[in-house]
Parts: sequence; C-alpha cells; structure tokens
Amino acid sequence: MSDVKHMKWWGWGVDGVAFHHEDKPGFAPFVLDAVALDLHAAQPVQPPSFDDLDLPASKARKPLLTALTKAVTAEFVTTDAMERVVHTYGKSLRDLVRIRAGRISRTPDAVVYPGTEEELQKVVDAVVKADGVIIPFGGGSNIGGSLEPHPDETRPIVSVDMGRMNRLVEIDEAAGLARIQAGALGPDLEAQLAERGWTIGHFPDSFTHSTLGGWVATRSSGMQSDKYGDIADIVRGIRVVRPGGVLALRPLPSTSSGPSLREMVLGSEGRLGVISEVWAQVHRIPAKRIIHAYFFRTFDDGLAAMQAISESDAHPSITRVSDGRETGFSLATSKESKGVSKFVQDSLFGFLEGRGWKPGEVALSFIGFEGSPEHVQRTKRIVDRIVKRHHGLGVGTGPGVLYDQKKFDTPYLRDFLLDRGAAGDVSETAAPWSKLHDVHANAYAAAQRAFDELGRTGWIMSHLSHSYHSGACLYFTFAFVFGDDPIAEYDLVKNAIQQSFVDSGATISHHHGVGLEHAPWLAEDVSPEGVAVMGGLFAAVDPGSNFNPRKIVVS
Amino acid sequence: MSDVKHMKWWGWGVDGVAFHHEDKPGFAPFVLDAVALDLHAAQPVQPPSFDDLDLPASKARKPLLTALTKAVTAEFVTTDAMERVVHTYGKSLRDLVRIRAGRISRTPDAVVYPGTEEELQKVVDAVVKADGVIIPFGGGSNIGGSLEPHPDETRPIVSVDMGRMNRLVEIDEAAGLARIQAGALGPDLEAQLAERGWTIGHFPDSFTHSTLGGWVATRSSGMQSDKYGDIADIVRGIRVVRPGGVLALRPLPSTSSGPSLREMVLGSEGRLGVISEVWAQVHRIPAKRIIHAYFFRTFDDGLAAMQAISESDAHPSITRVSDGRETGFSLATSKESKGVSKFVQDSLFGFLEGRGWKPGEVALSFIGFEGSPEHVQRTKRIVDRIVKRHHGLGVGTGPGVLYDQKKFDTPYLRDFLLDRGAAGDVSETAAPWSKLHDVHANAYAAAQRAFDELGRTGWIMSHLSHSYHSGACLYFTFAFVFGDDPIAEYDLVKNAIQQSFVDSGATISHHHGVGLEHAPWLAEDVSPEGVAVMGGLFAAVDPGSNFNPRKIVVS
Repeated sequence: MSDVKHMKWWGWGVDGVAFHHEDKPGFAPFVLDAVALDLHAAQPVQPPSFDDLDLPASKARKPLLTALTKAVTAEFVTTDAMERVVHTYGKSLRDLVRIRAGRISRTPDAVVYPGTEEELQKVVDAVVKADGVIIPFGGGSNIGGSLEPHPDETRPIVSVDMGRMNRLVEIDEAAGLARIQAGALGPDLEAQLAERGWTIGHFPDSFTHSTLGGWVATRSSGMQSDKYGDIADIVRGIRVVRPGGVLALRPLPSTSSGPSLREMVLGSEGRLGVISEVWAQVHRIPAKRIIHAYFFRTFDDGLAAMQAISESDAHPSITRVSDGRETGFSLATSKESKGVSKFVQDSLFGFLEGRGWKPGEVALSFIGFEGSPEHVQRTKRIVDRIVKRHHGLGVGTGPGVLYDQKKFDTPYLRDFLLDRGAAGDVSETAAPWSKLHDVHANAYAAAQRAFDELGRTGWIMSHLSHSYHSGACLYFTFAFVFGDDPIAEYDLVKNAIQQSFVDSGATISHHHGVGLEHAPWLAEDVSPEGVAVMGGLFAAVDPGSNFNPRKIVVS
Repeated sequence: MSDVKHMKWWGWGVDGVAFHHEDKPGFAPFVLDAVALDLHAAQPVQPPSFDDLDLPASKARKPLLTALTKAVTAEFVTTDAMERVVHTYGKSLRDLVRIRAGRISRTPDAVVYPGTEEELQKVVDAVVKADGVIIPFGGGSNIGGSLEPHPDETRPIVSVDMGRMNRLVEIDEAAGLARIQAGALGPDLEAQLAERGWTIGHFPDSFTHSTLGGWVATRSSGMQSDKYGDIADIVRGIRVVRPGGVLALRPLPSTSSGPSLREMVLGSEGRLGVISEVWAQVHRIPAKRIIHAYFFRTFDDGLAAMQAISESDAHPSITRVSDGRETGFSLATSKESKGVSKFVQDSLFGFLEGRGWKPGEVALSFIGFEGSPEHVQRTKRIVDRIVKRHHGLGVGTGPGVLYDQKKFDTPYLRDFLLDRGAAGDVSETAAPWSKLHDVHANAYAAAQRAFDELGRTGWIMSHLSHSYHSGACLYFTFAFVFGDDPIAEYDLVKNAIQQSFVDSGATISHHHGVGLEHAPWLAEDVSPEGVAVMGGLFAAVDPGSNFNPRKIVVS
C-alpha cells in the first residue's frame, strides 16, 4: 500500500483536528445572530461510520488491473473500499453532504499511485487501451466537483493519485525556476524549496491539502498573488502525460508560438491529460515579511483604497479588505486568550465613538509587504498615505499575525457547521473595478432572496482578496441552517449567487475552476461560442472521452 | 473605394520615406566592414513597376461577390489588382524579395473592408458558406508569412481588411479598460487614448504600421513591456467573429473558467476567426518618462545587470542592452549633426582609455523610467546602484532621446539594403536567464557557419529587449550580400539561427508569432504532442479549413 496521506474520508483536513469555539467567546452569539443556530443547544452529529457505507463493487476487470500492476507494481494499485471512497469526491459542500449521508453511487474502480512519469505514461496508456476513464487526483481539496466519477459511467474508472510524485527535482538558481513533480502538496513543496532558500509564493486557502498539479489544473490563486502572481503567472513550463506521449512545454519566460498550450493546460481539470511535472518561477525568501491591518469606514472606501494601491508604485504582496459583515465575523472568531480580539475591538471602539463609524459597516483590511527592510518600509509608507486619503486607519501587525496563523484553518469550520445542521460554503469571482460595488450588492441581494425563499435566516459575507490593474477578486462566504434536503437548499443559494455574478459582468470563478459546480454558467461567462471552442478542443484531443469526461463542458 | 492607407506595395512604410545615410558618416564604412558592401560603388535598383506584374486573375465568383457586396456595400468590396497585391504579403524579407521580383503566384481574390462587427459577421458567414478562405489583414506588417495565400489554394480567398474598424469605442475610466476596434493602427489608437489622458503602453517596432488585432493575433510585445506587459497581459477581453456568431470574452482582470479562451485567440493568426474588438488595459499617461543610457564592459555584464534589475524593486519600463556588435552599429548609425554620436563616442573613448575596455565588446544599454517624478527618481537610484555593481556607467539621457525618436525607423533599412543587393532580417527569441549566454553564442556560431557556407561576409548583432522574472527576450539582426538566389541564401542563415534557438532551450519566437516562417520548429519548441493539441484545436473549431489555413500548424 502506498503511504500517501489523505484527508478524512468524510470531511476536511487531518484526523483528530476540528474547529472548536471554546476559546472564542464571541462565536456562539455571532452564530445565533447570523443563522439562528444555538450552538449551546445543538446536538452535534457524530462522524459517519465507514462500515455503514453501501458501496458499488469495483468494475475494474482483470486485464486492466494486470496492466496497471505492470505499470506501477501491485503495491501501488488498489481496489480497496476506503481508497475508492477517499478518491470519489472532493470537499465541496455537496461532496460533504453526500459522503456523510453515504450517498455514493459511483466510485473509481481502482486507484493507482505512479512513482515516475514513465509509470504514469504506462498507466495512461493502459487505461486508454482498456477504454477506461482517468481522473487525476492531487490533494482532494477540489470544491468544484472536478473529481467525482459520473454516476452513469459504465467504463472502468481509474483515479490516478499523484501523491508519490512529490519531489522538487531541481532548481535552476540562475534563472529562478524550479522543476517540481505535480503531486507535491503545498507544505512539502515549500519545505523542499525553503531548504535551499527559495519560495514559490503560492498560498491558496487549501495550501495544506492541495498539490501543485491541482493548482495548475484549476487555475488556483494564492494569498500573496499580488506579488507572486496567480498560478498561471507562476507556471513557466509543464509536462502533461497524454496517450502515447508527453506534451512537453519547456520553461520559458514568454513566447509567441501560437495559441498558448500552457494556458490550455491551466484550468483543464484533467481533460487534456495528467500533469506530471511543472517548471515554476521561484523567488528567494524575502528578508522581511509583514502584514499590516487597517480599518476603513465602509467596504466601498476599502475597495477604493485597494484600487489606488494597485495603481500605485507600492507593489504589496497582499491586498485584502473584508466587508462589514466579514469584519464582524473576524472579530467574533478571534481568540480572546491571544488578546487580539480585545486589541482589535478596542481600536475599533475608539473609532466608533470618536468618528461615528457604524460597527456593521467598518471594513478590516490586511496589506502584506515583502522584500528588503527598506522596500517594506518604503512601500508601507506609500500604502499608509493611500489609506489615509481614504479615511482609513492603521492598527498595526497584531491582527495580521493572527490572520497569517489561522488562514488555513477556515475550511474546518464547514464540518463543524454540518455537524450542527448548518451549511457554509463559498463563491468567488472577479470583475473590473468599476463593477465591484454592484457585483457585491447583487450577490448579497440574490443570496437574501434565496434565504427568504427558504424561509431561513441566512448569512453572507465577503472580502476582496486579489487586486489587478483593471479589477479584483471578490470572495463570498454564505451559511444557513438547512432542512430536509440540504443539497437542494444549497443549490438554491449557490445558484442565485453565481447567477448574480454573470449578470453583473463578473466571472463564474476567479480561482476555483469550473468542474461541475460552475459549468451551468460557462456559456454566460465565455459566450456559447466560447463553450463550443473549448468543447471542440476537448473532443479533438480526447476523442474517446477517456480524460475526466463531462467536466467543465458538461455535454 | 475605402480610404484605408497601406504601406508601399513593394516595401516598408510610407511612400516617399526611405532610409538614407548622408547625415551618418559612420554608416558607409560600417557597412563595408560588416558585409563587404561598398555603398559608394553600389548602384541602387529602382522600385519595381506595378505595370510589370503578371497577376493571376481573381477567382472570386459572382455569388460570393454579391454576398460580400450585400454585407459591406459595393464601395468596400474590391478585386482591384493593386488592392489584391497589397494584401498578398506581409513585410518579411521573403515577402520583399518576392514582391520586388514580381513573384506572385496567388493573391486574395477579393478584399473587403467591413465597417462594423455586424458587417464582419456577414462577411465571415458569406465566405464560409461559399467554402472560401478568410485571411484577416491589419496593418500588413507581419514578417512571419501569416498573411500569404497558399499557392495551391483553389477556393476563393478573401482578405478581410480591418482598417475601417479603427475606433476607440469607450473607456471604462473607473477600471482602466478601453474597448477598441481591432483595426486601429498604433498611432491612431494612441492618439484617441491620449486625447483623454490614457495610454495602452504597447509600442512594438512595427507600431506605426500594425494594428491592435494584429498584435493580439501574433502575441506582440512592445518596448515598454517591462512595465505594461506583453499584449497577452494587456488584453482583458476579446470579441472574435466566427461562423454564425461571436466568441465574446468580457473584460476580466483574471478568471479560472477552464482553459483560457483568451490565450487561445492570442497568437491564433486568424485560425480561430476574425478579431473584431479588444478590451485592453489602459493607464494614465505618466507624469514623467525618461530613458537613460548606460555602458557595460561586456554584453554578459549587461545581461547580469538586466537580471538584477528585473529582480529588484525598480520596475523600470524598458530594459534593453545591446551586445558589442549592435553597440557598434548604433554608434555608426547615429546622426553626427545631433551631436549624439560625438557625445556617445567621447564618453566611450574616455572609458576605453581609462579602463582598458574593448570597443567591440562594450555594451550600450537603455533603461526606461515612467511614473511620478519621485518614482522615476527612486527607481533610477536603484538601477544606478545595480549598474555600478556590474561595473557599468551611466551616460545620461541623450542617447535615449535619440533611440526614442528613431525607434520606428529601423524597418526602412531593409529596403535600403535590398536596393543594394543585401539582405537584412531579424530573429528573436526568449529563454531563461541561465541560458541566455549560450543562446547568444550559439546563434552567432550558427549564423557564422551559414555565412561561411555561403562564402559571404555576414553580420549578426543582438540585444536584450524585454526582461521577466525568469528570463528575457534576445533579438538578433543579421545581414549579408546575396547572390543569385536571395531566398535560398536567406533560408540558410535564418534556419541556422532558428535551429540554434530550439537547440539551446529558447523558443522559436518571443513576439513575432509562427506563421509559415517559424512553423518548421514548432514541434521542437512545444513538442510533437503540443503541435497535435494545437492542430486538434484548429481542426475542431474550423472543420472546413476556412480560416487562414495551414498557418502555424502547416499540415
């Protein structure tokens, strides 16, 4: 058996780790107010029992299993029930609800763990020869439905787990380029780079449980993207294993060799082949790295300041501003023991009294600075000036330190809520600066209409998380207590928000990809002709529909 | 008839404008030394006579012409001989040699000038319905063979000249985005933007005679790309007219909606449809803009300094350094009357005497600074420090002013040389910093072997013109006196240089595209699987091969 670690089969993250609120006194009152859920009264359900699952049998036949065994040795091919379940879903709300309820109509029929690109090539060729289906698997953190097998798929489905291919192969130190195997998880990859003084600078929320290959396949973006770029900017070369050979794009700073193959692989979610290796830009670990917190009177003030910063010469590593509701949430989930909650709230109250700011409107912002001490000092000065022009106030590095520490813990909250009968999930988008106010307002209105339709007290909050010259990413989190049909109710809310995005000139996703979850709006995002071109590409390069079929372009 | 202006039918640029060297006393001795051509003895040939051309008849039949007339009115459909010739070739060396010799085996059968996207849609639909071929035409400056009709094409060929669609439609000032019709030439586009205080910041060498649509179709890059980005960074939304409908990508700062359609259209050279409109990032015209000149002891010192600058916090708008030979060429082509030649050479001689630098090795560099006066001052200070660390010396803004003034004049030189029996052309590429020294050395060696094989005194020179985190663009110019078969001799040299690129880990083109000229090396650049994927895309979205067939992927 492979020793590749996986998340809980029924939830996010590491076994034994969970969100708890004993040290966060503001949390329970907040939840009661936000979604009418009384945490003191709620009886949390226990994690489901694996033995209760009623699993379909593996459809993998002997010849295919023999070929896979030949490719990777028997140790790394399995039809084990737990392995098949672990590779069935990602971690979307829809996935979590289904797995908790034991709703599994189709699993992969076999899981393989190739150790080298040569083995991966043999796996790909064997599955295609057997007219099977290949679904590449990284860390399993996907929330777009990109990993699940189609319930009606009659052909054998093979999950190709890239977890053994997790090495930093080489660093071209003279060029700032690192060759890294696609299965490397965020922390493994950073540790290997850090040992030699480098960083890739890519830190998505899923960082601890997502892989380089997964980032590329879904067009991921990390928290320091303002400095380091989205994964599309970071990736300079790619190798993709396809039937009979490797699509090999050498590392290049830029090229005009036709339509960009690199940009076709980015976001392809397994439909063009299996990404085996990536050449990524890497940077020397900066001498200094700090995150400063600021308050703005309103979210609109914060947005205007972020745009001014993005147009300035400051070049910070992080631009982030939460709206009034998310600011309230952040304060409520702060640990009292660390003193930060008190610190932040004292600052805030000082304002509120002195300036007549309204608690529900005040917007908390984090700006990150990285580089030489002089650079950090100089750029902070530019940012401070802009913040002041937008009537904001700096409140030091305290909140930023906490943000930095707990930034990867948020996904655990979803399981905590599900245990107590509530759904929490996210929708994120990007739009031009000129449209952000309306994108935000329209998403709020759409969610509220959906909550009203459900007759439920619902919650929605948002932050800006990545700035560009012409626009930014807005990230929404929503929650509500569900009734008998959590997925139907979730769909109602999620769909309303997604529809509001495309109606407001925003995209269906800034960095989560399309999968199944966002596919219904693809034509409204990229036009029907765009879907036709994309579908044409998939059909042309995968005539047998062997590569993660029906994802992105569903038909 | 349309009033769209075109370049000379037989050469570069505006009628009546030509390169001359009367005011450049160093030029004739330089040319004698470089390619053994005695300009004083040479008898320049006269421009060819249009009346001598033996043109194939138009194959456009009545029903197609009627449909085109219906689409755009009779005024904007033509089968006129001059119009067909003007739209037959771009301005590659190969094109110029052929047009001068009257070698035209196939022209477009008709030229149309749509005035709106609706008209363009009707044109596209009419040509596809007639099973004709569409070749989009911008400014006609292409040097990759992207415009020429295939000599064996038996179907009617329609050149779709975008010259009437040249308007700035709107500016979203709040987002820094401009909607511009694809047929706008560089100067027209900048003038319309400048009127309202904006710039697109894209200034390729071809600027005066190339269009926005052409930039997108070939993945162009301009001189200020270090600040403003390549056209791929600048373009945020695109509209492409395809059979029966428009591929419409709304302007977005970033998106993860699957494989990037935007990046498929970029570099597609007409194979996916006709680009009608572009949403481009635009910037407020900076308060200050200067170009400083520096000297380095060697090209390698200059390269190292450019890399250090690209890694620094300086963010200049231009990083450019010429190798020893190109520096010599620049000095030789300086106008004496402007005093710059003397100024530069005095500075240089000061060095040479004092420090033992060698004239043929000294490297002239231009660094551009744009922004607020403080930003310009601060970033210049960072650059000055880096230059000093690499033993370079600043020589002020004098040479930079001259560079800025004459930067668009260089293409005229090719016609001057052709008039005198010599070929001059370019090859450009990009590679990681770690490989640039070898890419440069190998291109030089390859060119020299080709010159030796021809038994000719040949010239090659180079500069770095765009810097990225992980590498840079190298731009080579070569020249030699040709014999009986200029194209065969040109092929020998050009092919040797291109082959050296791919053999050295560099790409076949950084910003000129593929067309026919670079297609032979595409498989070595992006791997055979890459060509298969690209070819699959073209075949899928253009099953009838109606859109500029056999370009990029030749088969």
